Amino acid sequence: MSVRTPDPDPDPPAGDQYGQSSGNPSGNAANPGWLSEIELAEARRRMPMLYVEGIPVRVDGMGQVMQVGILLRASPLGEMSRTIVSGRVRYGETVRDALFRHLENDLGPMAFPLLPAQPTPFTVAEYFPLPGVSAFHDDRQHAVSLAFVVPVTGTCEPRQDALEVTWLTPQEAASDALAAEMEGGRGTLIRLALASVGALR
Amino acid sequence: MSVRTPDPDPDPPAGDQYGQSSGNPSGNAANPGWLSEIELAEARRRMPMLYVEGIPVRVDGMGQVMQVGILLRASPLGEMSRTIVSGRVRYGETVRDALFRHLENDLGPMAFPLLPAQPTPFTVAEYFPLPGVSAFHDDRQHAVSLAFVVPVTGTCEPRQDALEVTWLTPQEAASDALAAEMEGGRGTLIRLALASVGALR
Amino acid sequence: MSVRTPDPDPDPPAGDQYGQSSGNPSGNAANPGWLSEIELAEARRRMPMLYVEGIPVRVDGMGQVMQVGILLRASPLGEMSRTIVSGRVRYGETVRDALFRHLENDLGPMAFPLLPAQPTPFTVAEYFPLPGVSAFHDDRQHAVSLAFVVPVTGTCEPRQDALEVTWLTPQEAASDALAAEMEGGRGTLIRLALASVGALR
Amino acid sequence: MSVRTPDPDPDPPAGDQYGQSSGNPSGNAANPGWLSEIELAEARRRMPMLYVEGIPVRVDGMGQVMQVGILLRASPLGEMSRTIVSGRVRYGETVRDALFRHLENDLGPMAFPLLPAQPTPFTVAEYFPLPGVSAFHDDRQHAVSLAFVVPVTGTCEPRQDALEVTWLTPQEAASDALAAEMEGGRGTLIRLALASVGALR
Repeated sequence: MSVRTPDPDPDPPAGDQYGQSSGNPSGNAANPGWLSEIELAEARRRMPMLYVEGIPVRVDGMGQVMQVGILLRASPLGEMSRTIVSGRVRYGETVRDALFRHLENDLGPMAFPLLPAQPTPFTVAEYFPLPGVSAFHDDRQHAVSLAFVVPVTGTCEPRQDALEVTWLTPQEAASDALAAEMEGGRGTLIRLALASVGALR
Repeated sequence: MSVRTPDPDPDPPAGDQYGQSSGNPSGNAANPGWLSEIELAEARRRMPMLYVEGIPVRVDGMGQVMQVGILLRASPLGEMSRTIVSGRVRYGETVRDALFRHLENDLGPMAFPLLPAQPTPFTVAEYFPLPGVSAFHDDRQHAVSLAFVVPVTGTCEPRQDALEVTWLTPQEAASDALAAEMEGGRGTLIRLALASVGALR
Repeated sequence: MSVRTPDPDPDPPAGDQYGQSSGNPSGNAANPGWLSEIELAEARRRMPMLYVEGIPVRVDGMGQVMQVGILLRASPLGEMSRTIVSGRVRYGETVRDALFRHLENDLGPMAFPLLPAQPTPFTVAEYFPLPGVSAFHDDRQHAVSLAFVVPVTGTCEPRQDALEVTWLTPQEAASDALAAEMEGGRGTLIRLALASVGALR
Repeated sequence: MSVRTPDPDPDPPAGDQYGQSSGNPSGNAANPGWLSEIELAEARRRMPMLYVEGIPVRVDGMGQVMQVGILLRASPLGEMSRTIVSGRVRYGETVRDALFRHLENDLGPMAFPLLPAQPTPFTVAEYFPLPGVSAFHDDRQHAVSLAFVVPVTGTCEPRQDALEVTWLTPQEAASDALAAEMEGGRGTLIRLALASVGALR
């Protein structure tokens, strides 16, 4: 598969989904802190890009993870792949706000995610352009991702380019079959997520 | 203050609040796995006792901790003290079930706690009969406690011997004034809890 | 396999290997806090037993885990099995001291383990007498184990009943083949340990 | 105090201290992945910068934190301040390599730091140009820092602009007096570090 990237960053320059974004000190309209496509492409070749990733889960009444939500996504060329919630942290945006924004973009406004109280990710996933440096890679850039398990309590209706959310058991989510369908090493990320909640066997 | 113990264990031998307790493989009435008062007192002098502790918090829509719930408790002698949710893990009971049971005992059935998906506590608090071995002590026993931050979403109406829940800001909860009112070093435990959610300054 | 237990607890009642044990407030000879064999057997049927477990690893100069140490152990009946460092926390002993004591018992005095600065385990493994309650089980008791990854820098010469330490790559240590040789679900514990250090694929 | 920044990034464009840097897939001399001063200044106004921070500690034989190393640093204007090890992650560099590089820069080649096996930081510190968005701020940029506690076993001889390392007890390191001498909210970072190793009271 030729393209193995964290999801394209769907940043609308005049974004208005920012209502909930308490941590953004620079939320005015013509934001000099946002990058044009060309500038972003340039930056990607020069600096590590900060990402957040979210593994949506369903938990039972005792907090135990019962299901893992995997996104089905179509590339611009029509290739299908499985992925998770993923996206860039913007200038001036908190990690928490970025995670919420991408969850809402990918799962819709009725997903009602319960963001963790802890600021520490379950792992730090390092994506390098060159495969083999770490378990993760991304043709397009060097990205460092803070990855979180996020229980969702509502209904997921993917927006943007995510076609649907499939709910899998922990055992299905940890399978080699799923890993083979996921880009950039994200099958490993799912397993680390399951391990962090004690749901990996 | 003469008595510095984790809370008395309100285990009714024929407990019926066990409905939610999925992990208990021995939930029948005359349970040989439960200890009489005398046996329990004996065990406390011989073995470390396994405890769970919960710090109830209120979070905002982004998961950030806004308030910490502190219990006001009266001892049998009428002494008042501040504490948190705390209690023993029973034979055959999962840590998760024990945490839920003690949260329900202390905060009432309408607190709707959101138990963490992760099995790892934010700290392991070791209570020794002799002060000074660690930050925590307990006249009565050697107790090892797995401590969790637990967001609650409902209404807290303490049952048993907890008189009320007071909601404090993180700053108030981390204060020396509060620490002075808490037994056994639990002021330190509150600070470690706040640190784990990035709410300690 | 009929016996699936955390390792027998090699507690000599007049233990003298306690030299390094800074946290023990009751280290005198005839210790009323130690249990006779009969008392211990009785307690095991009534209370959860607190355990520590250590996964010995070799790290490179950058701290990355290169190898995992697995113990080969012979049961009193001559059955061989693979296991990790594991043992009970005694009355009055800190978790840290218990971990050190069991590491020394199982790996010898020249292993030079680097105990973690953090008191939080990578997971809490709950062993129940009845299989299926959790990923872990133990015919003999309900044990709750705080599990740690411990880099060792010296030479491992197992004492007691551990016959040898085999050093495996992370990939070998995570294999189904190894898991099949381990008791009580400890293959899962190895995988959770590898995940916590980012060494699981 | 007018300048409140993570430490200046001492990146020599033809850096040769890269010997230990196993994860850098682009370590050739004229590295297009490195930024000129002007480009770096530009990027700082447009994107969150990825940082690593290290709190050097001395541990005892049981792994318990005994002392915390605080750097004394002089600004180009001769102002003195207290800080910790801190610096940017370069394009193509692993987080682990960046942490090692900055530890070596700030503590000298004989510090012998023991990098953690775990890739997860004890906290994620978010520095914003505008004070008050979080506990941390930095006039110059939006920086997101992965912060680690790092035991050091050798001799610290600061290079570059760090003048000396002062070893403090956990109690001294957590004091308001020290926090007042530290820039950008790093007094809070020290407390969170101490909490993560159970050394905050």
